[in-house]
Amino acid sequence: MNETIERAPLDEKVISRLREIFGVERLLTSQTDMMTYSYDASFETQLNPQKPQVAVIALSTHEVSECVKLANEYKVPLYPRGAATGQTGGAVSTKGGIMLDLSRMNRILEIDHQNMQAIIEPGVIQNDLNLALKPYGLQFPPDPGSANMCTIGGMVSNNSSGLRAVKYGVTRHYVLGMEVVLPTGDVIVTGGAKSKALKSVSGYDLAHLMIGSEGTLGIVTRLRLKLLPLPVTRGIVLCSFERLESAGEAVNAVFSSGLQPSAIEIMDFNCIKAVNMMKPELNLPVDNEAVLVFEVDGAKEEVTSQVNRLKKVVEKYATHLKFSDEPNECEKLWQARKLVGAAVGLLKPGGFRVYAGEDICVPISRLPETLREIHNIAEKYGIVCGIYGHVGDGNMHTGPVVNSSNEVEMENVQKMVEEIHQLAIRMEGTTTAEHGVGIVRAKYMDVEHGPAMEVMRAIKRTLDPNNILNPGKMALPN
Amino acid sequence: MNETIERAPLDEKVISRLREIFGVERLLTSQTDMMTYSYDASFETQLNPQKPQVAVIALSTHEVSECVKLANEYKVPLYPRGAATGQTGGAVSTKGGIMLDLSRMNRILEIDHQNMQAIIEPGVIQNDLNLALKPYGLQFPPDPGSANMCTIGGMVSNNSSGLRAVKYGVTRHYVLGMEVVLPTGDVIVTGGAKSKALKSVSGYDLAHLMIGSEGTLGIVTRLRLKLLPLPVTRGIVLCSFERLESAGEAVNAVFSSGLQPSAIEIMDFNCIKAVNMMKPELNLPVDNEAVLVFEVDGAKEEVTSQVNRLKKVVEKYATHLKFSDEPNECEKLWQARKLVGAAVGLLKPGGFRVYAGEDICVPISRLPETLREIHNIAEKYGIVCGIYGHVGDGNMHTGPVVNSSNEVEMENVQKMVEEIHQLAIRMEGTTTAEHGVGIVRAKYMDVEHGPAMEVMRAIKRTLDPNNILNPGKMALPN
Repeated sequence: MNETIERAPLDEKVISRLREIFGVERLLTSQTDMMTYSYDASFETQLNPQKPQVAVIALSTHEVSECVKLANEYKVPLYPRGAATGQTGGAVSTKGGIMLDLSRMNRILEIDHQNMQAIIEPGVIQNDLNLALKPYGLQFPPDPGSANMCTIGGMVSNNSSGLRAVKYGVTRHYVLGMEVVLPTGDVIVTGGAKSKALKSVSGYDLAHLMIGSEGTLGIVTRLRLKLLPLPVTRGIVLCSFERLESAGEAVNAVFSSGLQPSAIEIMDFNCIKAVNMMKPELNLPVDNEAVLVFEVDGAKEEVTSQVNRLKKVVEKYATHLKFSDEPNECEKLWQARKLVGAAVGLLKPGGFRVYAGEDICVPISRLPETLREIHNIAEKYGIVCGIYGHVGDGNMHTGPVVNSSNEVEMENVQKMVEEIHQLAIRMEGTTTAEHGVGIVRAKYMDVEHGPAMEVMRAIKRTLDPNNILNPGKMALPN
Repeated sequence: MNETIERAPLDEKVISRLREIFGVERLLTSQTDMMTYSYDASFETQLNPQKPQVAVIALSTHEVSECVKLANEYKVPLYPRGAATGQTGGAVSTKGGIMLDLSRMNRILEIDHQNMQAIIEPGVIQNDLNLALKPYGLQFPPDPGSANMCTIGGMVSNNSSGLRAVKYGVTRHYVLGMEVVLPTGDVIVTGGAKSKALKSVSGYDLAHLMIGSEGTLGIVTRLRLKLLPLPVTRGIVLCSFERLESAGEAVNAVFSSGLQPSAIEIMDFNCIKAVNMMKPELNLPVDNEAVLVFEVDGAKEEVTSQVNRLKKVVEKYATHLKFSDEPNECEKLWQARKLVGAAVGLLKPGGFRVYAGEDICVPISRLPETLREIHNIAEKYGIVCGIYGHVGDGNMHTGPVVNSSNEVEMENVQKMVEEIHQLAIRMEGTTTAEHGVGIVRAKYMDVEHGPAMEVMRAIKRTLDPNNILNPGKMALPN
């Protein structure tokens, strides 16, 4: 447990400068406060929480910049943090130092509906932005499962996505520009210093270097986001398949027919079981290996048409099929998918669901074999798990369920996770589709990227010569 | 004219090594060949063609890598080139050296329809790829006007887009990974060395640093592209507006209604005139300031529904309106937009259309005032021009028409271009939405980007310490 690591206290000059920048009320030093900042939603940091030495709560770009300058001058590690809903330890201090809490920089500065843009601070919660956009008939599409809690700054740092990435793409596609505090404390604006253009190819697009860099290259302090029209309504087709392979074929047939669903979700047989345990009235067919939930969106007539086309395509492969283009009925059908993350915990009495090895992605064609192989690995280690995910992207969330008091199980689940990650790479996939690297997947970086890692490290050294920004993550310089 | 620049001949050792790498047949040195490589589609290089000292035609990554290593060893400028359809001088040698022709690395290596991906060499023409994808019901959406000629490597280097970016986004959104030869000659693969995943957040996404870097950071030798389902059919609504402001309001009303057209194109009064001159039977209403052409796509029923919704929204603002969901009729309505690039040349007897100042982008809300202001500037300099473009993105193509034998006009058009670029920046826009910087817009980089330029330059120096790759472009180190 890293809690016991002995660190020399931070230089008193650093503390005193932090006090000047943030005032006494936003400079936190108590051990209780440090404990709060010592983990995120990852299994790893739940097992091994890691405390910063101090935490500060920023309210402005100026404060962030001053804090970074100070950290750079004294070579103190600095860890930016949003809502800490991440599952990789990305927002946790691994080397003591300063935790920089950005969650209160949460103002929506402008909704420019005419220009289909929003200007926000990084601490704005995804769902709060979308609620504010609704009256304008607009949306910010990337929709991680944690949308009710996660900050958009965190989404940008991890290039998050979610259910609807199959139609709407990932966070990257909605960032037009950003204000960034560099590891030197200098402030830049990407995508044009004063631009509100929706499209630009002027210069290197530094936003795209920053997006997904998990706070290792700069701290986002302002975002200019691209918005899309909010679809009028949605339709659902829920269908089940005797064999995984038929589910894969159905997905392919849907794409080949020219349909572009807004979500294509899969749940395996264990998820079906779990959902039925949690909500028996949903009554998902239990003799099936997989359930697919397709969502389409658009205006009423278009949704009805798409639901009908979808039905026609998938009914050749499916054993059972339910559908609707009525909002209330859709909500019910969608419930099965919505509940699954919580439901898998029921697969084992007294068990809890672990977030580890939970984000692999493989080519769609290799999904059936990958799902089977994960269950083989799980069986080998005596672990129960339910698998669900964004099948249209090949992204699967494995949900192992363990009993925390069972030490063997706690060890076995980690071995299982290691094998799942190796499997993903062997299947021409990746260890992480949307959650990120942080500390939990750093060890796979060299094998995934080969010589490209040296370019990443060279860029890190160029922008952060003192390696102060979120050090110890992503297999960058330590 | 730069043709007359005296350069010391390339070191005989360099020539002899190039001969070893490429053989005598693919090492070109004659002045006629050098002339062929001395310009692209920009006005600037038509006025001032710039010859490389030698040109080589690459057929493999190995050859590219060997050539780059050689250039790096002898510090010889190296200019990668695709089809040279660019309008910025980006693919033209400004410092002599070696021209590296990639247009014959044009194999489609794999169409993996199950995984919605294609693996190609950079010299593949956009339209050739889409023809090959059609039987699978798939498409590579980015669609520049030069789609019949331009290479996808060039599109990636410039982050090109086109008519349908308003729905489908830009080239960047379709690059999953790439093989890149770095300025040292080392070869990396971005997005996972062996990955075929559709989504990944593992590591910095170096592809996104390379995309739009105009060949200054690396040479793309292989691309892994994301494909989308090809829509079944399309529908068109063509409408005209007494005043530009009403056209802007119509665009806004369409977005607010939840519609997502696949294209929204604008033509100003001069374009209307020009199109009527070229094709009188189109009979566009001449008493109007603007025509908008909306395209929607999907299955037949959905297109019909969208066309009806569109009509209902825009008829409040428009003076005339035509529409169709029948392919033949749509083709006719689309013609007006298709012809406009060529038609503007008719605005002035004996004139030709110049590609300069042709790619600005402003916030949608400022389009009417920007269009009016461009015509004011044009009038001041006595230049006729037609303006058209992708109004849904705020991207306008100004088409000035001049007589090349009129020296005053040739000077005035350049002054006009300068003012158009300054106007774009003043309107919170950019000098280039999709064509790039190259040499023609390098001088605006510092004003557009401010301190962010220093980060671009630092990255350039890190990856290309000898500044051999496409030097003299984008206001990077010279």
